[in-house]
Amino acid sequence: MTLRHFLNTNDWSRAELDALLEQAADFKRSRLGRQMAGKSIALLFFNPSMRTRTSFELGAFQLGGHAVVLEPGKAAWPIEFEPGAIMEGDTEEHIAEVARVLSRYVDLIGVRAFPKFQQWETDRQDKVLKAFAQYSSVPVINLETITHPCQELAHILALQEHFGALQRKKYVLTWTYHPKPLNTAVANSALLIATRFGMDVTLLCPTPEYTLDPRYMQLAQQNAAENGGSLQVSHDVEASYSGADIVYAKSWGALPYFGRWEQEKPIREAHRHFMVDEAKMALTNNGVFSHCLPLRRNVKATDAVMDSPACIAVDEAENRLHVQKAIMAALLGQR
Amino acid sequence: MTLRHFLNTNDWSRAELDALLEQAADFKRSRLGRQMAGKSIALLFFNPSMRTRTSFELGAFQLGGHAVVLEPGKAAWPIEFEPGAIMEGDTEEHIAEVARVLSRYVDLIGVRAFPKFQQWETDRQDKVLKAFAQYSSVPVINLETITHPCQELAHILALQEHFGALQRKKYVLTWTYHPKPLNTAVANSALLIATRFGMDVTLLCPTPEYTLDPRYMQLAQQNAAENGGSLQVSHDVEASYSGADIVYAKSWGALPYFGRWEQEKPIREAHRHFMVDEAKMALTNNGVFSHCLPLRRNVKATDAVMDSPACIAVDEAENRLHVQKAIMAALLGQR
Amino acid sequence: MTLRHFLNTNDWSRAELDALLEQAADFKRSRLGRQMAGKSIALLFFNPSMRTRTSFELGAFQLGGHAVVLEPGKAAWPIEFEPGAIMEGDTEEHIAEVARVLSRYVDLIGVRAFPKFQQWETDRQDKVLKAFAQYSSVPVINLETITHPCQELAHILALQEHFGALQRKKYVLTWTYHPKPLNTAVANSALLIATRFGMDVTLLCPTPEYTLDPRYMQLAQQNAAENGGSLQVSHDVEASYSGADIVYAKSWGALPYFGRWEQEKPIREAHRHFMVDEAKMALTNNGVFSHCLPLRRNVKATDAVMDSPACIAVDEAENRLHVQKAIMAALLGQR
Repeated sequence: MTLRHFLNTNDWSRAELDALLEQAADFKRSRLGRQMAGKSIALLFFNPSMRTRTSFELGAFQLGGHAVVLEPGKAAWPIEFEPGAIMEGDTEEHIAEVARVLSRYVDLIGVRAFPKFQQWETDRQDKVLKAFAQYSSVPVINLETITHPCQELAHILALQEHFGALQRKKYVLTWTYHPKPLNTAVANSALLIATRFGMDVTLLCPTPEYTLDPRYMQLAQQNAAENGGSLQVSHDVEASYSGADIVYAKSWGALPYFGRWEQEKPIREAHRHFMVDEAKMALTNNGVFSHCLPLRRNVKATDAVMDSPACIAVDEAENRLHVQKAIMAALLGQR
Repeated sequence: MTLRHFLNTNDWSRAELDALLEQAADFKRSRLGRQMAGKSIALLFFNPSMRTRTSFELGAFQLGGHAVVLEPGKAAWPIEFEPGAIMEGDTEEHIAEVARVLSRYVDLIGVRAFPKFQQWETDRQDKVLKAFAQYSSVPVINLETITHPCQELAHILALQEHFGALQRKKYVLTWTYHPKPLNTAVANSALLIATRFGMDVTLLCPTPEYTLDPRYMQLAQQNAAENGGSLQVSHDVEASYSGADIVYAKSWGALPYFGRWEQEKPIREAHRHFMVDEAKMALTNNGVFSHCLPLRRNVKATDAVMDSPACIAVDEAENRLHVQKAIMAALLGQR
Repeated sequence: MTLRHFLNTNDWSRAELDALLEQAADFKRSRLGRQMAGKSIALLFFNPSMRTRTSFELGAFQLGGHAVVLEPGKAAWPIEFEPGAIMEGDTEEHIAEVARVLSRYVDLIGVRAFPKFQQWETDRQDKVLKAFAQYSSVPVINLETITHPCQELAHILALQEHFGALQRKKYVLTWTYHPKPLNTAVANSALLIATRFGMDVTLLCPTPEYTLDPRYMQLAQQNAAENGGSLQVSHDVEASYSGADIVYAKSWGALPYFGRWEQEKPIREAHRHFMVDEAKMALTNNGVFSHCLPLRRNVKATDAVMDSPACIAVDEAENRLHVQKAIMAALLGQR
């Protein structure tokens, strides 16, 4: 039997995702359970976290389990990921040992590892996550690498709470400005999950250079075809917002400029007007707005949008707790 | 119904404080309970902590709950507190989202946020704590900002254990030297709580410039008037110690020099002799000595004083655990 | 009654160590217990940790207890260890208060404090650990200082799992190259415990300068005499490996060069060939290989050795969990 991980939603069938969402809704109604009684999860954070850490730690507790939070390179030893490496540099131990040892201690392993932002060709291989999955003998959960599948489920649950069925809803993923060239993970994830649930998806971004990696564009295209929705790319703000049911915002750096960010900066700066504001939201079909958080107010979205009833970002954040409990329970074979 | 926080002891009636102290004494006799079964608290540390973190984390555990420890700006995202801020600087998310999201995850939020020591006019507004209280939909607990109300209760409990009733006890809060200009929080708190319990309080400090913020001087004056005690300021070491029942020491920077600490330094240096030593303690009425800890030995108090039976600082530190469990239980409506 | 600590295995009788190992084997068969129900341990890390932290934290949880992880100098206040110090430097509180206060909060205290690598005469006094043991009123556990007794028991348990009785097994502790001059703790510990269990022990190292501190050489010699084994030092790789049952590897800096590491570096560099490889392992009596981890692959041992069935390093690491639970239970008077 192959070990089941939660690395990407596309590895899970729609029926399985629906079951996770149903279990998550159950956990939202009734928080406490024994699905992790005496069990544990190691949470490895190579990057900062507030929601992910809090929600996983509490999720484990509420199900009778325990989460151990590790920060490799800070309070824990730096890890080597290259197979066959002659380890004379900064890394003190190899993922082979880290994953094998952790697998003896805990029942689940969660990994957050953002790209290094030097070489997209390297980062897109998702080596850290894949190495954990390869060497672990317990299920591994993606806590955000180059996709963010836990966020995807939380997002969908929040949308289902608002709309019920999501089929053919008009969904806009809009790029927004941010002073730094951020990770594409949540953008990739938004395309994957919105197309998976049969929505009509528009990727709104400043220029063709902000289109996402072909791997995710193609997967999303395929998802759309299989699930009765559609995918298009647009650079027209007004057309994209018009009639939208859902506006999801995220900032990211343009992939062709990866590692040469100084050259991308002027393009980003020239598109500050992509900020989500009331005027744009007024073009929608009484649409909802969401974001994965953290969000820079008055840079990515205005205070007015964030504080409006249309903003369901806090619901989405809350749902992280519930969907992650469902994921952990499922991976442990518990319901 | 207004949400009840624990931001300052002056927001709680004397009867309520007495009930907290009674519950704390109960918890001291019998450590384990179920008052937080399945519940949780987020502890946000903007500054270091040993006692506070340990005692809250254990307190939650001993009552069946769980504490999540977050360090914004280190392992978690840096937070913006200004309303309406255009967030183009270092902060990645706004307190509005942080507090709202945490309120969905946990049942209580604790916040430690020391002053920034640049501008007292800014720091005295206690913006971080107030912002949490404003945006949270769960009770917020002050883990030390510009006051330290948990310490106040632990202090009073230790004094009650020693003296029984505290009314009209002679209480000296003495400034002591420290190489850095420290926070006035514990000093403010000492004045507030000692006057609240009807003691005759002397604030002993090097010069009038070391008097505390008028807000706390006035509140303490008012507390004294209402509770049958008194408040005076003195710069005379011998007179202050003479006949004292309680000596409480704390170092702090003089407010008129706030942000211009180099100019305050020579005054501080000139008053190293304020260190609590056996000669001074011999002037007291067989008095006890305490301190909130951490304490620099042989700078703030001598080894002889710290290791003497008169020193009840460790009892006070222990009581942090018990009073904080009482506070958490009370805020959750549990007894 | 003297307070019992777990500072070094040589403070515990062989019968006591055997009882700990038996209890550990029980915990390995059946993970959950109530030996720490409502109890707690403070884990103080002055240095990084992955296995130690995870295994103690989970061990406490699996026995119904709770571990608080503290990092003095980072998230907690820096601590002074000198008796009588006039604390005008960087340290904010004295071990006297830290240990006394923690003893009020928790039932056990674990301490990791590596040498400072400036002066071996200072480091060999193990001041931090001894100060905790001196001032604490609860049992203290050594989480690695200049010895690593928890690792010793995990190591022995893994060897017993493989061999059964260990008496007269041929045991080689081999020095290996590492870019940095590491702590001798695990090497000291390996000598102590291997001789304690009556093995024929060879310390294989590049030159006489890599011999360990006389204190540990003498204790090991004495252990060997009392337990029917032997201890010898060798610089001959082939002779040492020939017929060995157990190869245990560790890197350390030569004590005569302590604090003058630039002068030791060329000697270390000249002995990179001490790396454990298949050719060397082929000389053994079908021997097993182990290491305390973290291990730099292809520097200390080759991939081929690490990934071979002869490598029991991961078993040893797993056993940390089980032996530490046994230690905690024993110190709490629980079985």
